[in-house]
Amino acid sequence: MTVSSAFDVDAFGRRHIGTTPDDHGLMLAALGYDSLDALMAAAVPTSIRMHEVLNSAIPAAATEREALDELAALASQNTVRTPMIGLGYYGTVTPAVIQRNVLENPSWYTAYTPYQPEISQGRLEALINFQTMVSDLTGLDTANSSMLDESTAVVEGMLLTRRASKSASNRFVVDADALPQTHALLESRAAAVGIELVVAELDETTDVAALGEHFGLFVQYPGASGRVWNPSSVIAASKAQGALVVAAADLLALALITSPGELGADVAVGTSQRFGVPMGFGGPHAGYMAVRAGLERQLPGRLVGVSQDAAGHPAYRLSLQAREQHIRREKATSNICTAQVLLAVMASMYAVYHGPRGIRAIATQAAGKARLLAGWLEDLGQHVAHDAYFDTLAVHVPGLAKNVVARGRELGVLLWEADEATVLVSVDETTTIEHLHLVTRAFGGPEERDLDGPITQNAIPEALRRTSPYLEHPVFNTHHSETQMMRYLKQLADRDYALDRGMIPLGSCTMKLNAATEMQAVTWPAFANLHPFAPEADVVGSLALIEQLETWLAEVTGYDTVSLQPNAGSQGELAGLLAIRGYHLANDEAERDICLIPSSAHGTNAASAVLAGLRVVVVATDELGNVDLDDLRAKIAEHADRVAALMITYPSTHGVYEHEVKQITQAVHDAGGQVYVDGANLNALLGFARFGDFGGDVSHLNLHKTFCIPHGGGGPGVGPVAAKAHLAPYLPGHPMAQRADHSGGVTHDGGPVSAAPYGSPSILPISWAYVRMMGAEGLKQATAAAVLSANFVASRLRDHFPVLYTGDNGLVAHECILDLRPLTAETGVTVDDVAKRLIDYGFHAPTMSFPVAGTLMVEPTESEDLAELERFVEAMIAIKAEADAVGRGEWPVDDNPLRGAPHTAESVIAGEWTHPYTREQAVYPVHSLVRNKYWAPVRRIDQAYGDRNLVCACPPVEAFA
Amino acid sequence: MTVSSAFDVDAFGRRHIGTTPDDHGLMLAALGYDSLDALMAAAVPTSIRMHEVLNSAIPAAATEREALDELAALASQNTVRTPMIGLGYYGTVTPAVIQRNVLENPSWYTAYTPYQPEISQGRLEALINFQTMVSDLTGLDTANSSMLDESTAVVEGMLLTRRASKSASNRFVVDADALPQTHALLESRAAAVGIELVVAELDETTDVAALGEHFGLFVQYPGASGRVWNPSSVIAASKAQGALVVAAADLLALALITSPGELGADVAVGTSQRFGVPMGFGGPHAGYMAVRAGLERQLPGRLVGVSQDAAGHPAYRLSLQAREQHIRREKATSNICTAQVLLAVMASMYAVYHGPRGIRAIATQAAGKARLLAGWLEDLGQHVAHDAYFDTLAVHVPGLAKNVVARGRELGVLLWEADEATVLVSVDETTTIEHLHLVTRAFGGPEERDLDGPITQNAIPEALRRTSPYLEHPVFNTHHSETQMMRYLKQLADRDYALDRGMIPLGSCTMKLNAATEMQAVTWPAFANLHPFAPEADVVGSLALIEQLETWLAEVTGYDTVSLQPNAGSQGELAGLLAIRGYHLANDEAERDICLIPSSAHGTNAASAVLAGLRVVVVATDELGNVDLDDLRAKIAEHADRVAALMITYPSTHGVYEHEVKQITQAVHDAGGQVYVDGANLNALLGFARFGDFGGDVSHLNLHKTFCIPHGGGGPGVGPVAAKAHLAPYLPGHPMAQRADHSGGVTHDGGPVSAAPYGSPSILPISWAYVRMMGAEGLKQATAAAVLSANFVASRLRDHFPVLYTGDNGLVAHECILDLRPLTAETGVTVDDVAKRLIDYGFHAPTMSFPVAGTLMVEPTESEDLAELERFVEAMIAIKAEADAVGRGEWPVDDNPLRGAPHTAESVIAGEWTHPYTREQAVYPVHSLVRNKYWAPVRRIDQAYGDRNLVCACPPVEAFA
Repeated sequence: MTVSSAFDVDAFGRRHIGTTPDDHGLMLAALGYDSLDALMAAAVPTSIRMHEVLNSAIPAAATEREALDELAALASQNTVRTPMIGLGYYGTVTPAVIQRNVLENPSWYTAYTPYQPEISQGRLEALINFQTMVSDLTGLDTANSSMLDESTAVVEGMLLTRRASKSASNRFVVDADALPQTHALLESRAAAVGIELVVAELDETTDVAALGEHFGLFVQYPGASGRVWNPSSVIAASKAQGALVVAAADLLALALITSPGELGADVAVGTSQRFGVPMGFGGPHAGYMAVRAGLERQLPGRLVGVSQDAAGHPAYRLSLQAREQHIRREKATSNICTAQVLLAVMASMYAVYHGPRGIRAIATQAAGKARLLAGWLEDLGQHVAHDAYFDTLAVHVPGLAKNVVARGRELGVLLWEADEATVLVSVDETTTIEHLHLVTRAFGGPEERDLDGPITQNAIPEALRRTSPYLEHPVFNTHHSETQMMRYLKQLADRDYALDRGMIPLGSCTMKLNAATEMQAVTWPAFANLHPFAPEADVVGSLALIEQLETWLAEVTGYDTVSLQPNAGSQGELAGLLAIRGYHLANDEAERDICLIPSSAHGTNAASAVLAGLRVVVVATDELGNVDLDDLRAKIAEHADRVAALMITYPSTHGVYEHEVKQITQAVHDAGGQVYVDGANLNALLGFARFGDFGGDVSHLNLHKTFCIPHGGGGPGVGPVAAKAHLAPYLPGHPMAQRADHSGGVTHDGGPVSAAPYGSPSILPISWAYVRMMGAEGLKQATAAAVLSANFVASRLRDHFPVLYTGDNGLVAHECILDLRPLTAETGVTVDDVAKRLIDYGFHAPTMSFPVAGTLMVEPTESEDLAELERFVEAMIAIKAEADAVGRGEWPVDDNPLRGAPHTAESVIAGEWTHPYTREQAVYPVHSLVRNKYWAPVRRIDQAYGDRNLVCACPPVEAFA
Repeated sequence: MTVSSAFDVDAFGRRHIGTTPDDHGLMLAALGYDSLDALMAAAVPTSIRMHEVLNSAIPAAATEREALDELAALASQNTVRTPMIGLGYYGTVTPAVIQRNVLENPSWYTAYTPYQPEISQGRLEALINFQTMVSDLTGLDTANSSMLDESTAVVEGMLLTRRASKSASNRFVVDADALPQTHALLESRAAAVGIELVVAELDETTDVAALGEHFGLFVQYPGASGRVWNPSSVIAASKAQGALVVAAADLLALALITSPGELGADVAVGTSQRFGVPMGFGGPHAGYMAVRAGLERQLPGRLVGVSQDAAGHPAYRLSLQAREQHIRREKATSNICTAQVLLAVMASMYAVYHGPRGIRAIATQAAGKARLLAGWLEDLGQHVAHDAYFDTLAVHVPGLAKNVVARGRELGVLLWEADEATVLVSVDETTTIEHLHLVTRAFGGPEERDLDGPITQNAIPEALRRTSPYLEHPVFNTHHSETQMMRYLKQLADRDYALDRGMIPLGSCTMKLNAATEMQAVTWPAFANLHPFAPEADVVGSLALIEQLETWLAEVTGYDTVSLQPNAGSQGELAGLLAIRGYHLANDEAERDICLIPSSAHGTNAASAVLAGLRVVVVATDELGNVDLDDLRAKIAEHADRVAALMITYPSTHGVYEHEVKQITQAVHDAGGQVYVDGANLNALLGFARFGDFGGDVSHLNLHKTFCIPHGGGGPGVGPVAAKAHLAPYLPGHPMAQRADHSGGVTHDGGPVSAAPYGSPSILPISWAYVRMMGAEGLKQATAAAVLSANFVASRLRDHFPVLYTGDNGLVAHECILDLRPLTAETGVTVDDVAKRLIDYGFHAPTMSFPVAGTLMVEPTESEDLAELERFVEAMIAIKAEADAVGRGEWPVDDNPLRGAPHTAESVIAGEWTHPYTREQAVYPVHSLVRNKYWAPVRRIDQAYGDRNLVCACPPVEAFA
């Protein structure tokens, strides 16, 4: 039912797409096209163009209210019981001040990865707090600013020990008492790279020498069974024979027990979920990794460090960046190139808010409740397996485990059947005495019980009680009232530039709107408070949502099946390549281990290939940035029956619709290879062409790009893998998955790539809502609007900066590369100068020097409005004029508004002004900035200084005096 | 159950109270006390001190999580059916971007009233958007920036016409087709001030002359029955005989029908609730009032206007302030001294987001759905009473109305039984075709129906179709994508100073923490989406919450009963005085009409007394600011049996615990008068003394002060009235109240003071949660901490600024008055200079020149931490030093950092610097500001210029160029 008016007041599409139909007319006129259809017909090669609209798998667009109603109906199909399953996932209380001011605040969740550190000081401070927290609690020297989850962090720990160990052995010893999901991940990931795993029952008496030579050893601490034991002698013996030791440690337990660092471990990993991040049916949350001194340059992922700015003030930045975005291609040792920033921020703020006393009190309560429960169970004659434990009890009930767990569920508490004789029970911050009583009833205890009495004891052995301090930095001892916390979060947010201030035209990153309606269901208890291993009957709504989203994503990409398990694009890539590898192995073609990758590819492609056990062979690209078909054929011929796969990105990393993509995919198929299409640029394609239709066998998508999951300042991400049916059996499965079957009626039976069966379900409602509210037609309109905006910007700037790479009819796809090399040659003004100068104009810079050094890649997305596009164009033209003035010698090349950028308020106010340009030229180059100015909190940061003087923990307060 | 640790990690109290026990030790030592108990024993007069703790009516403190669980349990007792009752309350869709970025954003909701306009430019712009929206839609020249609700706005309209009309008549003609709650309010409010009401059936044929002479006439447009008619001839005839005409008009209807201004009305009033503000079981939302040119200086409440700052740039400010905060005491014509800013901001943003096309489309849909429903009903043989209507149908069903309404409720739609023969049905933005179908079924229609088909018609008569444009200003035609809207809201918030930036030490305003947990339930659908006239059985949870809160408030104040109906402190005052008046009348003491008010009283006291029909007699205060007991006795003797009441504030408006309060109240009681204790300063008393115990008969409280409802930038407020049992029958009742009985087993049978029976229920969960999470002991601790902080600040500043007025032992209560008059005399630096200079230091100024001209009144509240108190103290000391430098002649009195304050960034960057102080001295007087600077968006605003050149609508965009 609609009013007979062309104006649909409810349509979400017109809220999501920033340009109006009237704007489109103006923009198309500037480009010389009559209609969006005409533009898209000219831009997208006919050979790949879809001829029908997306089919009825995508329902017609719902209004925002209808979508929320449907989500509420799905949520109502879930049953939130009290989860006492543990195994790495625990109930936790998200402080309301953090939920409201971080998780629900666009200043935090719409920010991008802090590659422009000058305008990211707020979240960089939050992340260095995270690193300090992890470093303190683990007793190790340097922590990174988060991993994707605990189990993948263990895998990264294994890989780290392999490259850092001097041992020639290929063996990695795994604690038998590790989390089951960690065992599963280690198996599939070790197999892919040829590591031999040795699973061993470890305890204080273990004869490590008898395990044989090994490069690394892994200890779960406390154990999955809840057991707390002292692994120091095992660690020492392992290290003595040349290995490095990784410990997965529970951060909350570390408030009370001796830290891994003090026990001799080289590496500690784990999760910070229970520091205020809801379980969310598995994720997202921030994993962590910390290392002892000497290993910091081996850390995968992101590391925040302290450097100084042009004024000599301390300033935060990402250290050692080579480790991730500029990932080392085929020499890569990890494909981790993102983090869980938003969740790490939440966890760090939980520590900031509670402080060391609060964290210790929460841990003490958990340990005390576990001890109380054990006493009650022992009073019932139950056998609690271990004498020493933190928060988890293993109860020995031969033959009865299933019954006990079933009885618990009836009573409202979820226990875990570890085996037919063992029930695991974990307590946490949210456990009440009433919950403990329900547990005893599940074990046959009486219905009535006196629930009073203090908790005074715990079961942590004297020898392992922690004596070393932690969280002593003032930041953890200052913001303990809600008012203080609210203001601290506001002050940090004020330093940062996010989508709530203006456009972030980052090529290849698709910084589009993250709509408030899309975000709403994330914090609904029925989605947020589910344990990932809850019984299937309790999670019906979430499974239905997952299946719908899988179906929709398969439909829009032309594939048969989708797995939502990968927690990042890189993990999706890995899963896709592992599927290809599994397929060839199943076909007895183990020799197919060559992965062809164009030279223009994103570094992660090669890194993922290496971790999937493939060898990378580079294919040349031509002067237009397209795959060189002749070289491809030559490389195929050279490697003949060893070709496993080709990885291409479409549209290309140069932002162009390649014309010959069907010939490329055909050539690979003819050689018996599989085609992997990187979905990073899907925003240019949705509704117009499908990977599966032009030859793709498998792809990963980035829900945090095309499908509106916010970047969160550098994570979370979701990188689903989508594939044709023949690859389905090799897509990631999971030993604890509630359902083996997936949309399309297939099962996924490969090894897992994430700790949780469905990756990060708590944020999937975002993408679900986006598709649901756009409908097939809306998705197509968004694509066209994105392509129009990119071409409009390219057209407006072409006279000022050469536009590198175009496709048919001189058109780009959804992004354009501005070549600054001629400008640099003529004037000495660098791409860095331009990027930093954009901050003075109130913009986040486009992507710098990727995929081509000396360029800026601009992706406006469909969500920006015409006025904002024009504001950007005018800023770029003004900057060009400033650079020309430098070129003409009006300003020296080392002292001009560009080289001096960004300018802080202090820099134009305090002291004498000695520059050849004026204060106004520095900070108000266009007049509108007077009324709406974003002030950079620091001046240009000295990157090299920070890498030379690596400091990755909170600096002393005096540093800022 | 607690861990045997003194550290209670869950206690909300330690999150709410900013100072820690350690801080208390330091602060007490500075004051020379051993303990908080000792301080409070010295400060609070023994004669009024409670000897027991608050009794068990206040439950022990809950944790934040427990409180939310209990609120959820209460919410689950409500049943949200689809409300189609209308009568001024309509379903509406709050755009998610507005909910998240305004209603759930502390930058908006923790702001104070914009008395410091330089740091309030964001919300002032939002309010001038509101005024422009109302002015456009009503077709009148000037709108104010909101009223408390529609019915009180009608009352204010009546009072306005009385004072503006030249007619000597005492009669006010009321449209019989007015909303029932408006009738009820007019009756009680007119009676109090001696206005005679004439209720008349008005239509195009009415002979106005036959109604007799009248000073004003009121038309409901459209009528409560849904009827749309043309009142222009009635209006013309009424005006011709000397009256002014008030029209209550539905803002959404005005998108389609001719505006009141075009029809000749002088005044338009109404509500903006359906512009995106949830019904909330009655409130809060923003009422409105607009007037034709010539009446703007008669407007009650707040009026935002455009002036210019010291640099000549346009700047917003409150115009004609004399009308409200500095209310004209016994000469007052209104006691309205607040507004509904947060809700007016939401409504204005709804118009900004939808724009004129969107608003017209929403109205067109509503009108079309009403017409469709009428057709369906007529097909069933039902009689729809009017031919012309907007969104509401009156259906004639003799004897069957009750049955139809009951049947509708079973089907899930709430209809209204206007009388036994008439059912009212209203449609709105949220009504679906399915809802219309359910309505027809309630009238006996078939279960099956074809629900398709376009809506093409409506029932607005051709002659009344609106042809004039509205919302043409660019602000209503720019921010239509969600990204644009999000950024506009962020830009506005960035201009403002709220509690999320730093302390707002406003004496008498109690700007304490508004905790995120307290705010959470406000947006829960089970509280937000209830119609105020829903059946009792549907609102059981809300009624239970209301009753609990009433009980708790009665307990903490020592009264027997509480009414939560008043929407502001001023309305609570009025209700309390009306109760006193009712009591005397019932006792046949109509001659008791004297209200004694100390000269130090807040201006609103006298204004409320006037509106309650009382005559004000001023009682002197002594040099300490206390009531002069001798003068009181003299005034009592003079007026003998005419004394109705004494109004006092306790602690006094000077922030002192008066010693003789019991003698004062006794003297009034002995004279047969009643004692009204103004609860504005209750934050200094909770847990230590109770109004009811030391002689109060009735009080109002300010839930937006002591009980944590955020100020919202100048509203909402809740001003409950609490009374002893003998006054209960005269407290405000309401004809549509779901229950007549209140806590304490009494009924409230007076006339209503608000449009909705329980005032603003959607924000009551805030105060409920505060009391629930603090418990009796926590409330007491908060009081002590607030008093300690005020005395600490007084002590630290005493050597720099004389502290006016202290009580026992030289102690103040919860606030202190710093006397700047000596400084001004010595140096020429004014209180204004100091207040504006505080902005440069990153503070909101204390209350200026109230209650004593030339002073600053500082109220730190318990929520500020010691570091923030010290930061304030240091700023004040530094400012004193700057003033002394002026006094020594180092800087001229007309050009120094104080007179130049506040300094914008532009003012210290652009152009030549010609001042005798440096740029750094201007904006970085203390070094910490370099790292955390709030930049005032404008320089000091010229107040007089704005009043001379009154502009109260959005200025053209060019003004900012």
